[in-house]
Amino acid sequence: MAISLYWEDLQPGSVRDLGSVSVDAEQIKEFAAKYDPQPFHLDEEAGRQSMFGGLAASGWQTACLAMRLTVDNMLRHTASKGSPGLESLKWLKPVYPGDQLNLRHTILESRPMKSRPDTGLVRSRWEMFNQHGDKVLEMEGYGMFGRRSPANT
Amino acid sequence: MAISLYWEDLQPGSVRDLGSVSVDAEQIKEFAAKYDPQPFHLDEEAGRQSMFGGLAASGWQTACLAMRLTVDNMLRHTASKGSPGLESLKWLKPVYPGDQLNLRHTILESRPMKSRPDTGLVRSRWEMFNQHGDKVLEMEGYGMFGRRSPANT
Repeated sequence: MAISLYWEDLQPGSVRDLGSVSVDAEQIKEFAAKYDPQPFHLDEEAGRQSMFGGLAASGWQTACLAMRLTVDNMLRHTASKGSPGLESLKWLKPVYPGDQLNLRHTILESRPMKSRPDTGLVRSRWEMFNQHGDKVLEMEGYGMFGRRSPANT
Repeated sequence: MAISLYWEDLQPGSVRDLGSVSVDAEQIKEFAAKYDPQPFHLDEEAGRQSMFGGLAASGWQTACLAMRLTVDNMLRHTASKGSPGLESLKWLKPVYPGDQLNLRHTILESRPMKSRPDTGLVRSRWEMFNQHGDKVLEMEGYGMFGRRSPANT
């Protein structure tokens, strides 16, 4: 896949629809068994008895699904150089089997990196909504991207 | 598994060793193929040519491994009621195949939840170190826990 987006192309204020993904009960249980084996992520009855009121996806699965959409619909076209981290990650509503999740990406801020003349830093917000329009996930964090024109050093 | 730790037992200042986990090249590629298919997480040669200098785990995999250790060595003994989110998540160093990762958990703060008399909120820091003593991951965030003695409403 050819790189078409460099740091210079990722401008504050730009909003991208990063597509949608759904999750079913088997995927919820499979992820939970590996990474978050709490009863309400593994079993319908335990979910019903929990604060979720039903089997619910691990918040880490929701975040990972958002990452996959970000790679497929944005990062694979960019000169992505990884991320130093997130400023916040909010699990706002449970994700249930059959939910259809849509991801929106907004660029908040952009600046060159002094330590790396060939790289720029971009601060973004990710918002994931379910089929009812409820926001289930919100994250803000950083990405590093290669520059089309490195700074003079 | 019987619940032995309620909100009242999770006191600020307490530090727990939540154990260790290792990750190999196959696990790195398998996770990346599902959730973070960027070349440097999928292929040794692409990793060598990247800022990581070698195949490196997705930061989301590192976070998920930390979650698994947290469930196995702490949450499964508690009245865990999920999490509203994280205040920060920092990917400080790359994680490479063969790395042995150790997780430390520190309770920073604790307070009752006004909206839920049977639940308390705990703010924690997670720090994950590799076999060289380098910190690879740091997170701060919240967990909700059932109270042994609900507040009078």
